[in-house]
Amino acid sequence: MVNDTLTINTKHLLYALYASGVKHFVVSPGSRTTPIALMLAEYERQNSEIVVYIDVDERSAGFFALGIAKTRQEPVVVLGTSGTAITEYMPAVAEAKVSHIPLIVLSTDRPAELQNNGAPQTLPQHRLFGELTPYFVSFTLQDEHEDNTAYIDYMTQKLVHSAMDTGQPLQINLPLRKPLMPKLHDSHDVSITPLTFEKTHIHILPIVIKQTHVVILAGPNEAADYKDELLQFSRDHQVPVIADILSRARTTDTIFGVDSLIKAHYLTDEYRPDLVIRFGGTPVSARVLQWLQRENIPVWHVDGHAGNDHSRHVTRAFQMTPTAFLTQLALTNDMTFYQRWQQLNDIPRHAVGEASVSCMLNRILPENTAVFVANSMAIRDMDDVFSGRTTQKIYANRGVNGIDGVVSTALGMSTVSSQRSILLTGDLTLFHDMNGLMMAKKYQLNIDIIVINNNGGSIFSFLPQSQADEYFEDMFGTPLDLDMSKVAYLYDMPYIQLKGAAALGECLSHQVHGPRLIEINFDRQENVANHRELLELNQHE
Amino acid sequence: MVNDTLTINTKHLLYALYASGVKHFVVSPGSRTTPIALMLAEYERQNSEIVVYIDVDERSAGFFALGIAKTRQEPVVVLGTSGTAITEYMPAVAEAKVSHIPLIVLSTDRPAELQNNGAPQTLPQHRLFGELTPYFVSFTLQDEHEDNTAYIDYMTQKLVHSAMDTGQPLQINLPLRKPLMPKLHDSHDVSITPLTFEKTHIHILPIVIKQTHVVILAGPNEAADYKDELLQFSRDHQVPVIADILSRARTTDTIFGVDSLIKAHYLTDEYRPDLVIRFGGTPVSARVLQWLQRENIPVWHVDGHAGNDHSRHVTRAFQMTPTAFLTQLALTNDMTFYQRWQQLNDIPRHAVGEASVSCMLNRILPENTAVFVANSMAIRDMDDVFSGRTTQKIYANRGVNGIDGVVSTALGMSTVSSQRSILLTGDLTLFHDMNGLMMAKKYQLNIDIIVINNNGGSIFSFLPQSQADEYFEDMFGTPLDLDMSKVAYLYDMPYIQLKGAAALGECLSHQVHGPRLIEINFDRQENVANHRELLELNQHE
Ligand SMILES: Cc1ncc(C[n+]2csc(CCOP(=O)(O)OP(=O)(O)O)c2C)c(N)n1
Ligand SMILES: Cc1ncc(C[n+]2csc(CCOP(=O)(O)OP(=O)(O)O)c2C)c(N)n1
Repeated sequence: MVNDTLTINTKHLLYALYASGVKHFVVSPGSRTTPIALMLAEYERQNSEIVVYIDVDERSAGFFALGIAKTRQEPVVVLGTSGTAITEYMPAVAEAKVSHIPLIVLSTDRPAELQNNGAPQTLPQHRLFGELTPYFVSFTLQDEHEDNTAYIDYMTQKLVHSAMDTGQPLQINLPLRKPLMPKLHDSHDVSITPLTFEKTHIHILPIVIKQTHVVILAGPNEAADYKDELLQFSRDHQVPVIADILSRARTTDTIFGVDSLIKAHYLTDEYRPDLVIRFGGTPVSARVLQWLQRENIPVWHVDGHAGNDHSRHVTRAFQMTPTAFLTQLALTNDMTFYQRWQQLNDIPRHAVGEASVSCMLNRILPENTAVFVANSMAIRDMDDVFSGRTTQKIYANRGVNGIDGVVSTALGMSTVSSQRSILLTGDLTLFHDMNGLMMAKKYQLNIDIIVINNNGGSIFSFLPQSQADEYFEDMFGTPLDLDMSKVAYLYDMPYIQLKGAAALGECLSHQVHGPRLIEINFDRQENVANHRELLELNQHE
Repeated sequence: MVNDTLTINTKHLLYALYASGVKHFVVSPGSRTTPIALMLAEYERQNSEIVVYIDVDERSAGFFALGIAKTRQEPVVVLGTSGTAITEYMPAVAEAKVSHIPLIVLSTDRPAELQNNGAPQTLPQHRLFGELTPYFVSFTLQDEHEDNTAYIDYMTQKLVHSAMDTGQPLQINLPLRKPLMPKLHDSHDVSITPLTFEKTHIHILPIVIKQTHVVILAGPNEAADYKDELLQFSRDHQVPVIADILSRARTTDTIFGVDSLIKAHYLTDEYRPDLVIRFGGTPVSARVLQWLQRENIPVWHVDGHAGNDHSRHVTRAFQMTPTAFLTQLALTNDMTFYQRWQQLNDIPRHAVGEASVSCMLNRILPENTAVFVANSMAIRDMDDVFSGRTTQKIYANRGVNGIDGVVSTALGMSTVSSQRSILLTGDLTLFHDMNGLMMAKKYQLNIDIIVINNNGGSIFSFLPQSQADEYFEDMFGTPLDLDMSKVAYLYDMPYIQLKGAAALGECLSHQVHGPRLIEINFDRQENVANHRELLELNQHE
């Protein structure tokens, strides 16, 4: 018993997704997905651009898709079965929403007649993610009418376009009635009318800046890679660039580790800009925004989402790409000012404790290595000491800064790179998405997972609650005593325990294939002391 | 720097929760939780009824809380930090919504001024779960006004009551501004005015039934334990009771495995009831509802949520408890009819393959053992062959039938029982919530986890998509090659691999403490054959 209408409409849906730029699908098993999953498997055989991954844990699947989407800057689909399976995507959808990634949830659903009346495995899936997915549509693939089919073609393209244009996740809900079997090897030729979306090109007047002590602060930037334009502009106009670790533009020509520089009082009056132009998202360094505010330095924000500024200190918001902005910009900066800033990179960055890992990566990573960095201390340490000497491909989940889904997002990222990738993570973060490792094993993904294992959350030791000794360890430190060698063993991954960051070079230089787990141990108490020590070492006299 | 208003209001919130019946809290670490987590830790020391669990993975934490709530029939709180952490609760919230459990999400949040303007780790948490949490409130614990404090006292009690009364999850959102440190050892005496909620007792007229071939179908029933009243009624009025595996009322006096009986054509005309009274939720057996519909047997539904019936075959819905209903019921059933039905239990149930595990558990479980049963084939097999000889404490997540969170829900359940508990699960389901095992290790929970390992999802082999050989194994079978001995090793749990169900008796008879992982291997292909064979074996001539 197969279903013709369902077969044809499913084809239309898949072809329309492809016509809109979707090539990657991450599928989780479940009976309601049957028609889509089977037709997709068939489509994968027919179209060499289509890539399908299978991930049993939908939470991990959501993040895996996110990882591909954020590195390819492409819409990626997750497909899951009705019920809690769909709710499992919510963490990845949240991260996608806030970090502007067009993640597409294809949620198969029970048909209308099974809603709200005690049918098993049935949820109100309609707009399940609420505000998190501004774009939503429900298709009835079993409704046989040419208007319906044309609607699927059109609406899929329109919504995927909107999702990409605004960087927002999209839910496509698919209520499906049994029988669910599609007709495989169906000979029907399906053709899609491709829809193109064009925008008015607004002519921007030249932006003339009279200030001569201008600094660019390049914040996190998931979308366009504007490094070359930025560096060219910086050199041509002598504008120093403070580059966030996630700016995709941090090189040895830009300033790194501004957080530490401010903390160690390096940014004295002679460094004070009279205008800062901020590109991209909220910087990893909270201190740099505080500094701009405290020093009352005027800030312009240039970004597709400009004005998104919780420091409430931006005075002009340019909602455009940095590249468009830079081409219109006329300014003549002060040469001494520029040179003074450029010399900041010569200040030696002493890194002890956990930060030594980031330091060592800075020294030894092969060019263009893609690195995924976990939240908590890892991203802060990288922002502090990683100079961008060899690679600008640094990624993280900095929308909602979750410690969840990090393994899967990194693995998704690793599929995009032809080179071996790196994940740098804390132990709790690794634990949170340990299930994600299944994909590393199954697809033998090329990644070195470096775990900074301090047996718990070290970030909390820097916060006021660390004073509440009676309860601190239980409620915040939360040591798990996770044996990393056993984790690696479970997933058949080579396991290497290093005595310290120094050994990383040797370890990463080996030619290997597939995933590896590399553990470096640290002590949480010592880490706090180390960071204090570091501050003193680096202190500006 | 501590915060007095925050301290006092947090106390009020916690005391009001306790006054409403909340005793169990499952906390996940995160900085925004600081005031609540610390005051709660202090409260736990002061009040011996308060129990706090710490679970790093919020998804597992949500299900762990659900497990406690469903077995204690009490509201249970999960406490988490702002951002994706809160989205992680969605799967458990969905299950709670559909299976009517008062799960309470305390979601700490960033303050208003950090919303919607690029602040990190910030989501629109207001009504984040949409329709899934009909009850919602946002408290500003740092607002110093007596009206605010009185509102916290009152509203907490009112909403927890509503959540319990209607069996719905509740979100309490807590926007918090830094500084977040509460004053520990604060001497302020906080007292709460307890609020009691009373209902009109409606006098129900006696319900007189003229039919004499009445059968009761006791469906899944998470709430009231009405077994004794039901059995008494059944005996007194000669009404046979078909008891769902999750009815909490299946004993040797009730009929079990009706699904197989229908499938094997045992329910011939002489068994046809002229009225069926359905209690509780949607039965595990889909076939029994189809049978009622096909045979056009009138059905009354009695349940707090009566009328929730996707077979659309219920003719009268009584929205009341079965106990209230039974006390009003006058009927005289036919004795021969009753006896005929009662003899159905004498039919031998041959169980081969995976069902042999359920069969064996039926034989050997100590009285009153609490058993959590995973979805997919495990619950179906149990429904088929477990007679309820020794225990009625059978639980499952049958709201949305997820394969997620099962380990954690079972572990939450196990904390409630003074006896050693059992989890019966498939391998994919175990994998999905493997992280849940961390709680078993940390708290050394008393549970035997029995994994029916057929290396993938065996349920799909019974569905039409199993015909699509080219794609089936990849898309639906999804073997993970998970080595269970390594899983046990990772969590320092004793691991036992049994050659078959027969060895279970010996294995479970040992006096042990803490969790164990018991694996029994099956072959998915054979399992399908076995089930067919079974059907033939059991076939009514
Ligand atoms: C899903 C989620 N839960 C909780 C948090 C709060 N949180 C932030 S950092 C952290 C500890 C992370 O520990 P680890 O990964 O070991 O890194 P470390 O702090 O040691 O650098 C936690 C629990 C979060 N960001 N996301
Ligand atoms: C969260 C979630 N994802 C997917 C499904 C669909 N699903 C139902 S049963 C099943 C397979 C379960 O396999 P296993 O636990 O090994 O049990 P078996 O089928 O072998 O009895 C799947 C994927 C679901 N119910 N819930």
